[in-house]
Parts: sequence; structure tokens; C-alpha cells
Amino acid sequence: MKDGWLNKVNWAQDGLVPAVAQETGSGRVLTVAWMNREALKKTVQTGEAHYWSRSRKKLWHKGEESGHVQKIKSIRLDCDEDVILIEVEQAGGIACHTGRHSCFFQRLEGENWVTTDPVLKDPKDIYKK
Amino acid sequence: MKDGWLNKVNWAQDGLVPAVAQETGSGRVLTVAWMNREALKKTVQTGEAHYWSRSRKKLWHKGEESGHVQKIKSIRLDCDEDVILIEVEQAGGIACHTGRHSCFFQRLEGENWVTTDPVLKDPKDIYKK
Repeated sequence: MKDGWLNKVNWAQDGLVPAVAQETGSGRVLTVAWMNREALKKTVQTGEAHYWSRSRKKLWHKGEESGHVQKIKSIRLDCDEDVILIEVEQAGGIACHTGRHSCFFQRLEGENWVTTDPVLKDPKDIYKK
Repeated sequence: MKDGWLNKVNWAQDGLVPAVAQETGSGRVLTVAWMNREALKKTVQTGEAHYWSRSRKKLWHKGEESGHVQKIKSIRLDCDEDVILIEVEQAGGIACHTGRHSCFFQRLEGENWVTTDPVLKDPKDIYKK
């Protein structure tokens, strides 16, 4: 696999771009994480979402511990070529480390952020190692 | 309006967080841009999306020139509180400065980025000033 297509992406100075994961079918936005060249390449090669973990400073195969991998259906790039949108099938129906379907479970109501989505599985049972 | 709810957001060192705009109804991801405190506050106060333009280094009322404003239906925050997801009604059905419905009009097919979405209106006719 040649890497020319990776050069199309306008990687920021820190080598990253935001990547939005949207669930196929429901259309729900599940997560927004970060990708570098290696993460995007691995995502394409394996057909499963890989990100760059900014907190752990390492390549992160989403679901590597939880089993909640994201299978890739399509990969899109925006007009400025600095944001990636992936359409995914979410294993286990849980994208969030809190055990919820989507990471976007807090909704602004008036001046309050209200939790709107239930925990589907206790994180203690997700991360057993 | 007090600003306590704005402190819930984990603004990055540069004062920004990514903001994903998703179209109500279709569920399409239209744009990803950046917000600072002022942009989010204005978004809530006016009911229309405001962003921080990193290229122009100024507050940007989306649609201020094109008329393609984004009316806010809901505002969500993710688990790390460093990404915002807004559900919007897209005026004119055009979110992208290229005259397309969504900014994510390039799709990876094999090793090629292929333009999949048509231009709905010539940018020359959108930006007449």
C-alpha cells in the first residue's frame, strides 16, 4: 500500500486531526477522537478504528481492552481536509468508556448539562483486566 | 445568564474545542469547526451556530455572509467534556463553502479520495459581496 492518499490529509503541526465516528444505520455520533498517519493507515489496513490516544501518547486500537471495536463502513474527509469522518458498526453497541452507547450523553438544558443516556454495562464489567 | 455551564467544558490550552454539527432529521454530519467560550455562549444566546475561525482568528457567525445559518436544536457534550455536538437545521441545505450539502464530500475508495456529493450552488452565487 502506497501512502499518497495519506498526504491528502492536512495533518496539524502535532500530526493529528479529529476523527468523528458515526454509527451506520442509526446515524448517531458515537465518539470524536484523534488520528495520526499511523492510526488512519491502520484503520484502513485492518478495517477497524485506530486512534492516537493523546492522554496515553500511543496508538490505540479502539476496543482492544473492551472488545468494543468499531468496524469501518466508510471513511470521509472534509473540505479543508483536516477532519475525518468514519462510518462504523459499533461492537456491543457501546462506544463510551462509561458504558454508554455514545460519548455524547450530556445535553444542555437551560444552563445545566443533563445526562440523557443510560449506562448499558458497568465499566467494571467492561474492563476486567 | 451566568457562565457556570461554560466551565464544564474542558477548553484546550488554546481555548478551543471541536464542534460537530449534525443535521436534524437526516443525521448527516455537516461540518466540524471550532468553538471557544464566546462562540458557545453566542450559539446558546442566539440559537444559531457560532464558531471561532482559526484562519481568520475571529468569532464567526456561520452563515453571516452566505445566509446558510445553522439553527440549534440541541447541544451535547462528550464524556471527556472536550468535544461539542450540535444538532442543527441547515438553512439553504448547504453547509459547505464549496456549495455542497456537507463538508464531508470526499470518500476514500481504495487509495483514492473520490468526490461523492454534487455542488448545489456555485460559491460565486453564494458569496456575492
